[in-house]
Amino acid sequence: MMRVYVEDLSRHVGEDVEIAGWLYIQRGNNKLRFLQVRDGSGIVQCIVAKNDLGEEVFELAKAMTQECSLKVRGTVNADERAPGGHEIVAKEVELVGESNDYPISPKEHGDAFLLDNRHLWLRSKKQHAVLRVRHEIIWAIRDFFNNRGFLLFDTPMFTPNAVEGTTDLFEVSYFDTSAFLSQSGQLYGEAGAMAHGRIYTFGPTFRAEKSKTRRHLTEFWMMEPEVAYLDLDGDMQLAEDMTMYILERVLEKRRPELEALERDISKLEAVKRPFPRIHYDKAAETLIKYASEHPDEEGAPFTHGEDFGARHESILTENSDSPIMVTHFPAEFKAFYMKRDENQPDRVLGFDMIGPEDAGELIGGSVREDDYDKLVSRIKEHDLPMEPFEWYLDLRRYGSVPHAGFGLGLERTVKWIAGRDHLRECIPFPRMMYRMKP
Amino acid sequence: MMRVYVEDLSRHVGEDVEIAGWLYIQRGNNKLRFLQVRDGSGIVQCIVAKNDLGEEVFELAKAMTQECSLKVRGTVNADERAPGGHEIVAKEVELVGESNDYPISPKEHGDAFLLDNRHLWLRSKKQHAVLRVRHEIIWAIRDFFNNRGFLLFDTPMFTPNAVEGTTDLFEVSYFDTSAFLSQSGQLYGEAGAMAHGRIYTFGPTFRAEKSKTRRHLTEFWMMEPEVAYLDLDGDMQLAEDMTMYILERVLEKRRPELEALERDISKLEAVKRPFPRIHYDKAAETLIKYASEHPDEEGAPFTHGEDFGARHESILTENSDSPIMVTHFPAEFKAFYMKRDENQPDRVLGFDMIGPEDAGELIGGSVREDDYDKLVSRIKEHDLPMEPFEWYLDLRRYGSVPHAGFGLGLERTVKWIAGRDHLRECIPFPRMMYRMKP
Repeated sequence: MMRVYVEDLSRHVGEDVEIAGWLYIQRGNNKLRFLQVRDGSGIVQCIVAKNDLGEEVFELAKAMTQECSLKVRGTVNADERAPGGHEIVAKEVELVGESNDYPISPKEHGDAFLLDNRHLWLRSKKQHAVLRVRHEIIWAIRDFFNNRGFLLFDTPMFTPNAVEGTTDLFEVSYFDTSAFLSQSGQLYGEAGAMAHGRIYTFGPTFRAEKSKTRRHLTEFWMMEPEVAYLDLDGDMQLAEDMTMYILERVLEKRRPELEALERDISKLEAVKRPFPRIHYDKAAETLIKYASEHPDEEGAPFTHGEDFGARHESILTENSDSPIMVTHFPAEFKAFYMKRDENQPDRVLGFDMIGPEDAGELIGGSVREDDYDKLVSRIKEHDLPMEPFEWYLDLRRYGSVPHAGFGLGLERTVKWIAGRDHLRECIPFPRMMYRMKP
Repeated sequence: MMRVYVEDLSRHVGEDVEIAGWLYIQRGNNKLRFLQVRDGSGIVQCIVAKNDLGEEVFELAKAMTQECSLKVRGTVNADERAPGGHEIVAKEVELVGESNDYPISPKEHGDAFLLDNRHLWLRSKKQHAVLRVRHEIIWAIRDFFNNRGFLLFDTPMFTPNAVEGTTDLFEVSYFDTSAFLSQSGQLYGEAGAMAHGRIYTFGPTFRAEKSKTRRHLTEFWMMEPEVAYLDLDGDMQLAEDMTMYILERVLEKRRPELEALERDISKLEAVKRPFPRIHYDKAAETLIKYASEHPDEEGAPFTHGEDFGARHESILTENSDSPIMVTHFPAEFKAFYMKRDENQPDRVLGFDMIGPEDAGELIGGSVREDDYDKLVSRIKEHDLPMEPFEWYLDLRRYGSVPHAGFGLGLERTVKWIAGRDHLRECIPFPRMMYRMKP
């Protein structure tokens, strides 16, 4: 009898097949049982009748508990009322592995308990759906860049020096010396762009932030394209094109998962290009006006020249269905490598893409300073040591070109699209300040 | 004028276009110059005639040095003799960024010098080709698994405990405690397989091996599929299918790169399925016979029960065009989680896939012990602490199923297919015991 996956059942209607999986839940009476069997690809209802299988097998099936593993052999029926559109009329049922006192029941559990049992929690319907949305987002991102001729350029995790101060860096004993874990592949990605024209990095990055908020993981995945001969408008266009591509792909391929997550899909469908481009000065004006109208609101006060807090990002996006792109931030609180605007030299040619529905900053991008002398000045102004940047300065010594790129935080994007409250559900095994297990 | 990439020139024959890139090399005389311009996607010859452009621009072009950045505007001609099949008859040439005394010249350089200048060495023709082969291999692997319904399951880099002893692990200061960097995502991947049926991990892994050989990087990428309800034969079939898929894809899409690398393509075309499956006992017999016939050969002596050395792998594959799969290794030197063969209890249900042409071990795989009691015994036998494995044991407490998987070393695969001598050319910025820069 042919072993098939639940997701392929539509190709086997009327045939006898074998499903191998785990018992999600069962209900029924003393003559008829309905076993919901999950095999990772989906859930199918298996109908187990005492009359068909005999007393012994029926009682075995009836005694099966949540998350025991089992095989069911039977006939595939198309049934529109069944979840997934198919059901299996069982001819044989076989217990593979027991499951006594499975710790996660349909009742509500606390966060700490679920995280302690992350290796099992992953099997739950919503967690299953989140990771399938994550998978689709990653796949879409890679397809988007691969199909546009970008080269995947895996940048190193071990870096010899702290690019922007050591506060948030993890230090590793590296034989007789120390290494730091990468916070961004960008500088290396720039070397890649000079060799390959268009590259993207996609890998884990690390931040030793002493924060317990929902927004921070110590280990998260980041995707960073870098393109030679690209300007700010082109960079924003790339970010917008990519975001729309991801959204359309998830809406096309993962609607059942979004429904399982009870995501308000209309909000995702409302996202339209072009995403509003807003100059920092204009955004600041909006925020100052808002604060004056809401004098007692926490987090709302704002002074021109500041960076945005979480509340400010919410205020700026609250009337937008789509992400917004804020440009021309003050150089003061931005990274040394960002190119300044000639017409407004205290501003950088960069943008933050802030998602709707309180998604926060999803993307940060900029044009990079491509002038050797200016870059040396910036390194000095930021009190950074020159020696570790000599190789980076070489990119301006030998055939420097205008170039730009951005960084996308993967888990934040998953959180937004899947509509989750917590970043920690958006990666298989989240790592936080107080959480390294399992 | 439309900006185009070199790889797209075939769509613009007869049109006027702009190319933006870097000067690879130029030759010519006082009236006519041939500029080889690379833009990352390819190299195109641009013909610069004094009569067409005038003295000033011609002299500017003639003075251009290796790796300066430039734009060329002109007409695309199809020319079969030209590298890539096209050339551009220049109408305008513009210098973007200078390049004085570019350190890497066509002459031979020492290894250390090239690695010190890795950020520039990446621009060289062969290095460019290696990374494009790498890109294609990764893309092929992901397509292979994605199209078969596998879920990408990113496992954590930070792990709380040393799975197989701490000797080769990198230790990280993790706030008030320590973490270790992952050597494998497998154990976490098993939890993923119980939730999603079929998963694969693909990310960096770390090994603090005190080795200066060509075979070891401290940071390398590993891809590890894990499948519920899979046996050893199915596992080997999966590895073989995947390897053939990768090879066919690189041969289809990256022939120019393989040619640039002077790879003997016929060796890759000679790889055929099925890959020979060889029982360890049979392999040992071959090695013992070989050693007796070559009594003075270094590395050749072999005793039944030992693991293979590099020389042994070469001997075993020297008459095979295809990778070979050696099965049933002695359990003694294999990992605790490998399932034993019922018929030969001192052997594991595992395999190593050893590549031809001295490629070494490319893949190691096994069926995992799925019996709770046996797994507990193995953990004790290996003198491992029980507590850190409690979550892993849960996978055997709650609906345990037979399952199997393997691990593929990405850089070793790139080294084999691209035909390189050194692993360090197979990743953008290699990290080794004495090498963390740039």
